[in-house]
Amino acid sequence: MKNVVLLGSTGSIGTSTLRVAEDLPDRIRLVGLAAGTRTKELLAQARRHRPEIVCMAGASDAKDLASGLDGAARVVCGPEGLLELATLPSADIVLIAIVGTAGLQPALAAIRAGKDIAVASKEILVMAGQIVMNEARKHGVRVLAVDSEHSAIFQCLQDRPGDSVRRLWLTASGGPFRTTSAEEFEGITVERALQHPSWVMGPKITIDSATLFNKGLEMIEARWLFDIEMARVSVVVHPQSIVHSMVEFVDGSLLAQLSTPDMCLPIQVALTWPERVESERVQTNLAKLGSLTFEDPDYHRFPSLDLARRAGEVGGTLPAVLNAANEVAVEAFCAGRTKFPGITQTVRKTMNAHTVIDDPTLEQILEADRWARTVAANGAAVPG
Amino acid sequence: MKNVVLLGSTGSIGTSTLRVAEDLPDRIRLVGLAAGTRTKELLAQARRHRPEIVCMAGASDAKDLASGLDGAARVVCGPEGLLELATLPSADIVLIAIVGTAGLQPALAAIRAGKDIAVASKEILVMAGQIVMNEARKHGVRVLAVDSEHSAIFQCLQDRPGDSVRRLWLTASGGPFRTTSAEEFEGITVERALQHPSWVMGPKITIDSATLFNKGLEMIEARWLFDIEMARVSVVVHPQSIVHSMVEFVDGSLLAQLSTPDMCLPIQVALTWPERVESERVQTNLAKLGSLTFEDPDYHRFPSLDLARRAGEVGGTLPAVLNAANEVAVEAFCAGRTKFPGITQTVRKTMNAHTVIDDPTLEQILEADRWARTVAANGAAVPG
Repeated sequence: MKNVVLLGSTGSIGTSTLRVAEDLPDRIRLVGLAAGTRTKELLAQARRHRPEIVCMAGASDAKDLASGLDGAARVVCGPEGLLELATLPSADIVLIAIVGTAGLQPALAAIRAGKDIAVASKEILVMAGQIVMNEARKHGVRVLAVDSEHSAIFQCLQDRPGDSVRRLWLTASGGPFRTTSAEEFEGITVERALQHPSWVMGPKITIDSATLFNKGLEMIEARWLFDIEMARVSVVVHPQSIVHSMVEFVDGSLLAQLSTPDMCLPIQVALTWPERVESERVQTNLAKLGSLTFEDPDYHRFPSLDLARRAGEVGGTLPAVLNAANEVAVEAFCAGRTKFPGITQTVRKTMNAHTVIDDPTLEQILEADRWARTVAANGAAVPG
Repeated sequence: MKNVVLLGSTGSIGTSTLRVAEDLPDRIRLVGLAAGTRTKELLAQARRHRPEIVCMAGASDAKDLASGLDGAARVVCGPEGLLELATLPSADIVLIAIVGTAGLQPALAAIRAGKDIAVASKEILVMAGQIVMNEARKHGVRVLAVDSEHSAIFQCLQDRPGDSVRRLWLTASGGPFRTTSAEEFEGITVERALQHPSWVMGPKITIDSATLFNKGLEMIEARWLFDIEMARVSVVVHPQSIVHSMVEFVDGSLLAQLSTPDMCLPIQVALTWPERVESERVQTNLAKLGSLTFEDPDYHRFPSLDLARRAGEVGGTLPAVLNAANEVAVEAFCAGRTKFPGITQTVRKTMNAHTVIDDPTLEQILEADRWARTVAANGAAVPG
């Protein structure tokens, strides 16, 4: 039985995690649940899963939740509440699925309290990968990824030594504009960008899949998660999203992880590791699928990949700047304030304007994040 | 450094093994080489690789070899010679790549002498899988497979517990008659059957790839090698031969091993395991390959798969009978004495005529082999 704290229980990853917990009642017990603003949903989840402790972002939502729960669970709120959940004595593993930077401090707190963490929020490893992995090593805990790509690599790698790896291959669906000509990119609408071919996800991550920034962020995550230099992290486009990623070993052998796309699988793998637990949820029939195709990404139409590679190679505060600028630019695109190619342009300009700090502290990273948001919001009005 | 004895050094697997040894002079030392009749080739190999001991099948060939080597290596011959090589004190691992039943006794002798064995000869595990694996467990040695399919499964499985596996998926190229209609099977010529789409191999194994008996034999091998019941060994047709096989875990996750087809890779994996050693020999570019396709096998046109499943399920002496009858039938087909569908018909008739002995001794297995050869050679003139 694993005792799990789930931060971000009402989002896409959060609700999938609850489904996995319902599939495996003898394996997974949810001891803590945290949500942002969806009080009613968290209330329903808490009634069903009976955690020890629940957390809402706001104090007044927390009050509403407490009255609904009527003493069935302890109710906390805000960043302090998240830290309390992250360090809950009964927790074995903390799954962090909060969008944005709010998951960073809880991730570090959980690690320092000796908990394994499972990371769904890209920000944690993109912004603070070096700090998080150093702390994890120091405290002897595991950092597991619950996105399909890093879970695939983790499953292929096991605990094999890093020097046996030649290259990590992240697969990318290619997004909705895989075959769209460069000329058409200016005219891409928000509606079109929100149609993802393989996965149903939140709007931010769906736009990121359209720009391939999603893959760029995953390259940076992989760099830290698997302790490998950026030059050995590659991307191959695979529109069917069945091969979730691959490891190429130094002898030329490739191991790949495959399954029909369902986030429940990487979540289950992370929460039951090192065991494999029976589940009928994911069924994959390759003969029925028929064909798996692969192609090189187009670095010209999708400059996000090179920007991410540069951020990962340079390191320091630059990945945080890329991440923050992208977030602001995606918001601007969704609000109609910039065109689709403006997203990568904003990120590039913001990155170019940044003076990188090497080996930054968490505070310096968060400061770079704030700086980048301001600069990007001002149209990155700096030499491009 | 691994000290390797190679039985069958002048065949297809043997020469590939020598190439791997030449690639990795700091990792692999060939301490013993055995060949059947190709004296000149073994002489050249021995001059190049300087083994301690060499073996020819025949005494007069051995004499020729000895005079050519002029004392540079000890020369032995015949079955006793093979046993001497298999138990060579300096050997760490014995790679058995002799076609036919001649590899059986050396395989068991090597295991009993505490050597790991690497198995290329299908007969060893098909005929005596239970005995071989029991002996290996008893003596604490590893049985590694050097064909691409079982190597793939081995790489995907690692040493994970068997109860984490739902199914093993052997991939099959489908052979040259994958898309040939059932009506045309009667008219298939030997020339056409010898054209394999992906691999360059000897004639027996190439015909086996055309009937899919090759895959059937591999199903039986997998059953023993990975200690899994026959019902959980499946076949999927994959004409590109890039995915070499897969493991489906109980949680629905599939791990696959991929590479361009080159026997040097599974040989290197077996001879360097548990390490991964740098080699540029095998390069795989999925984007360039473009498409990997999968389809269900046609059990009607390729009854070999059901025959093999039955042999593996029933066990005892039946797999040896299937193997022997197939060998005789392939010879008959190559000599023009039977048509292509006659191969599976002969095997079925011979299997039907056999009274299975459960838990047989090696002698009973060899007796069943001899019996099946006679029955099959007589056209399996028994109730069909």
